[in-house]
Amino acid sequence: MLDDKILKFFKKNEDGYVSGEELSGALGISRTAVWKHMEKLRDEGYEIIASPHLGYRLVSAPDRLTEVELKWKLDTDIIGKKIYSYDEVASTNDAAHKLALSGEKEGLVVTAEYQTRGRGRLGRKWVSPRGKGAYLSVILRPDVLPREACMITLFSALSVAMTIREETGLPALIKWPNDVLINSKKVSGILTELNAETDKVNFVIAGIGININTKKELLPEGGTSIFVEKDSQVSRVDFVKRLLKNLDKYYAIYKHGKLDRIVEEHKKLSAILDKRVQVNYHNQSISGHALDVDKEGALILRLDSGFNERVLAGDVILLR
Amino acid sequence: MLDDKILKFFKKNEDGYVSGEELSGALGISRTAVWKHMEKLRDEGYEIIASPHLGYRLVSAPDRLTEVELKWKLDTDIIGKKIYSYDEVASTNDAAHKLALSGEKEGLVVTAEYQTRGRGRLGRKWVSPRGKGAYLSVILRPDVLPREACMITLFSALSVAMTIREETGLPALIKWPNDVLINSKKVSGILTELNAETDKVNFVIAGIGININTKKELLPEGGTSIFVEKDSQVSRVDFVKRLLKNLDKYYAIYKHGKLDRIVEEHKKLSAILDKRVQVNYHNQSISGHALDVDKEGALILRLDSGFNERVLAGDVILLR
Repeated sequence: MLDDKILKFFKKNEDGYVSGEELSGALGISRTAVWKHMEKLRDEGYEIIASPHLGYRLVSAPDRLTEVELKWKLDTDIIGKKIYSYDEVASTNDAAHKLALSGEKEGLVVTAEYQTRGRGRLGRKWVSPRGKGAYLSVILRPDVLPREACMITLFSALSVAMTIREETGLPALIKWPNDVLINSKKVSGILTELNAETDKVNFVIAGIGININTKKELLPEGGTSIFVEKDSQVSRVDFVKRLLKNLDKYYAIYKHGKLDRIVEEHKKLSAILDKRVQVNYHNQSISGHALDVDKEGALILRLDSGFNERVLAGDVILLR
Repeated sequence: MLDDKILKFFKKNEDGYVSGEELSGALGISRTAVWKHMEKLRDEGYEIIASPHLGYRLVSAPDRLTEVELKWKLDTDIIGKKIYSYDEVASTNDAAHKLALSGEKEGLVVTAEYQTRGRGRLGRKWVSPRGKGAYLSVILRPDVLPREACMITLFSALSVAMTIREETGLPALIKWPNDVLINSKKVSGILTELNAETDKVNFVIAGIGININTKKELLPEGGTSIFVEKDSQVSRVDFVKRLLKNLDKYYAIYKHGKLDRIVEEHKKLSAILDKRVQVNYHNQSISGHALDVDKEGALILRLDSGFNERVLAGDVILLR
């Protein structure tokens, strides 16, 4: 807590020095205590120089997804107004879920440097190497019906794809409904879970996993990372801040009922439209031509029989 | 824990005495410690007589929904194989939800003598006077789609209505979808909540509140209790044990896909079929003749316009 306060002091004086005396007075601790906190921050990876006459100066911060780093100058209306950053957690979705049950408001973001039981769709494992990706979950409380919640998966995937494009210039595309690809390989997955009554959504947890600085050998088969595709590291803090900003933007659009705009933007970045695909869902498998995504977010397939089929969710495999 | 072991000893020797020596040997504690535990059980409401030569004998147990009392000779396949009994809890649904997130299996039952924030549908309050009703939640993990989960509300209400009829002879009827009435007044409500992905239910919490021995002055407006209708107290323990047995039976039927049987039994006990009703849902209100409940559990209304309307959930008000 005191460390956070010191960091905020530095952030406010971004270019200059902060004197030990100033910190000591503002925080109500001795100058020796200030010095000890500086040592602790250095241990955590903060580069701090000390000058006898000028005081302390923050030169660089470690690229860790902490609350202080993420919230600094984060300009959002709902998403990330509150952030809980964990070093390690079983699953950010489970952690967010429990927080939502305890009454936390929408917009709360849970991040973790490492997940011991990171999950993907249908109980699949999501590999979460420490400090390499972004693993985060957001609590949303939209006033919608359970069947209207699948659009949340769509705009979350759209937010990730847009963030990759804006931060790195890489040609990210969306594999409907919940994966983001770069050069046909999976870089991110979305796991949307709802807590609902039969006719009312209580809350939604939008879980997002992205391989950012993950090296090739730590990636699952068919997976890629921004580092692998770009051949250089990116700032995870900057990336996640932009992602929160994009989520905030598309959530506002969703809440205003402008679903057609989300669907249109999603379609522009689709990796599957106009391609031949196979969709596996509920022990069924159908193949056809990916024709459209309708205004409720369902995929419209033109089957070989000539009939169209409307699919609400499933695993899409690109054929040819 | 030791108290539970002593009680199980008594239960096994239901008609006879258990000697202090026997208990002392079996539990590995001194005879003075045995005596102290007997005092503690007496404080909790157990009537225990002690005879210098014969030992201790359990004469009667308090009517409290504890694990030991509920599990004694409970003959079910899934429901209640594990029971967590709380004296006080915010809401049994929330407690069960957190347990399900932690990986507890289906069939786990959470009971409470008192709820500080008991909930009904759409965030409404459920009044839970201490020790008077039954407030319980069950974790279910059926392999179904989110839209197939509303049948759980139906068979839970059916289980409550059947239990009231079998235990008390009172003419309980079901007000679709989730209330149970006696003489047109509400005696029980069901709150079904799901945790789901877009196309898969992770788990369902079936929450049930029943006014059993609740006195008239503690009931909300329009509510009743078994005590008020029958003018005598019933054993809450016996009632809940039979309820768990009925839930177990109907859940097996549900899992075997025999939804038509649930719907048929539900319709036989319907308080609204063939009556004129008003249904309020999602800020809409429609009135008509309650024609049928279809195989997916939806209510079919014949509107004044002559058209039929299919309603998935809502608040039903009986007109006339």
